[in-house]
Amino acid sequence: MRDLSPLRRVRVILCGTSHPGNIGASARAMKTMGLASLYLVNPVRFPAADALAMASGAADVLQNAVVCGSIDEALAGTVFAVACTARSRDLSHAVLTARETGLRLLREAAQGPVALVFGPEKTGLTAREVSRCAAIGMIPASPDYTSLNLAAAVQIFAYEVHQAASAVATYPQETYEAASYEEVEFFFHHLEQTLYDTEFLDPKQPKRLMQRLRRLFQRARLEKEEVNILRGILSAAQKSGKQNS
Amino acid sequence: MRDLSPLRRVRVILCGTSHPGNIGASARAMKTMGLASLYLVNPVRFPAADALAMASGAADVLQNAVVCGSIDEALAGTVFAVACTARSRDLSHAVLTARETGLRLLREAAQGPVALVFGPEKTGLTAREVSRCAAIGMIPASPDYTSLNLAAAVQIFAYEVHQAASAVATYPQETYEAASYEEVEFFFHHLEQTLYDTEFLDPKQPKRLMQRLRRLFQRARLEKEEVNILRGILSAAQKSGKQNS
Repeated sequence: MRDLSPLRRVRVILCGTSHPGNIGASARAMKTMGLASLYLVNPVRFPAADALAMASGAADVLQNAVVCGSIDEALAGTVFAVACTARSRDLSHAVLTARETGLRLLREAAQGPVALVFGPEKTGLTAREVSRCAAIGMIPASPDYTSLNLAAAVQIFAYEVHQAASAVATYPQETYEAASYEEVEFFFHHLEQTLYDTEFLDPKQPKRLMQRLRRLFQRARLEKEEVNILRGILSAAQKSGKQNS
Repeated sequence: MRDLSPLRRVRVILCGTSHPGNIGASARAMKTMGLASLYLVNPVRFPAADALAMASGAADVLQNAVVCGSIDEALAGTVFAVACTARSRDLSHAVLTARETGLRLLREAAQGPVALVFGPEKTGLTAREVSRCAAIGMIPASPDYTSLNLAAAVQIFAYEVHQAASAVATYPQETYEAASYEEVEFFFHHLEQTLYDTEFLDPKQPKRLMQRLRRLFQRARLEKEEVNILRGILSAAQKSGKQNS
């Protein structure tokens, strides 16, 4: 089991956010991905009811948010920061994709706090703010329209950080008992016999059809219980054909 | 330069969305990732000013949205659909991560239209709606809080599809003609009727068994020719039961 605590070292820094709703939605996005550390640099309006509404179950992230007067204050103590932006820059830093950003941040988090830095909705980060960061992070987007909503961008970067942290997936796995080779073979024999009994299959030319059916059911990776159901169906079909003869 | 046109075959289907703002934000999320095909099944309120406001530069996606009265209508013509959900299910389908979903959808899109299906904000997809899909897609999230905003979830799945479109390998693909949604549904109806005719199934308690069978065949991703074969088998079983009566 992997320890997810490096996630606790990832700050999200929102600079000059105009809409409190985006702050709330960002808090929610963070919490779904195990991030808790939110810094707000000169938010236009905060705290605010619409921030709380959009945060949904992540009100705690908002309540613990640190409001700062400058980006330097927000970055204090960090060892690595990525400026998240959709625009390419004159004096370009190293540009990382969102995926690379997640992997890199996690690696750097072994050393101390790290940060994802986002600019205001309309204008993005200033050159001065970008210059405070070690790299630029970009979300590969459609060339026709690259303008992600702020909270949507936070969601994707947070997702990639979370992905990087959990090499072992946490989503529920299918649990079922796979049918054994023998059970599947018995089923195929039963199926073939039923196709003769119902006169669907010509005993002179059975091979290709059975191959097709084999391919279908092999692809499905039959479970034990499914084999039982299917054989029950075959028995019913055989009985139905015989009962009045 | 890779052709991104398979993205044009990816539908996003939003079922019973409560808040028009989420529809607009989803449209924006789609457009940033090169998706354009939005279907709305019984939206609570649409068109709406707040949908348009949240869509920002993606008003065209909203304007071209297809409003449907049922999920079957929205899925018509598709060859593969993923139910996007945060909850695990009783009779679980194959569960794909968001990343796997992106790769899989792109591969299936070679055959025809494919879909990402999302439920209402509060309640998610019903079991019936999930049963119309071939797989479940889940976003790996923090075990403490898995509740992504609807548009945020659309953003991540769209992002992964877009990532897949730029990364899908050029190795030779399987070539087969996938059965359409309608063809598979006709098969299920035919199967159910045959199970009554052969007295395998009790009309009073059909549901759970049909769900199991749906799950099996959805997992197998039926081909057109396979559906024809299976329906031929069902017809033979029906005829065999009747011919001597």
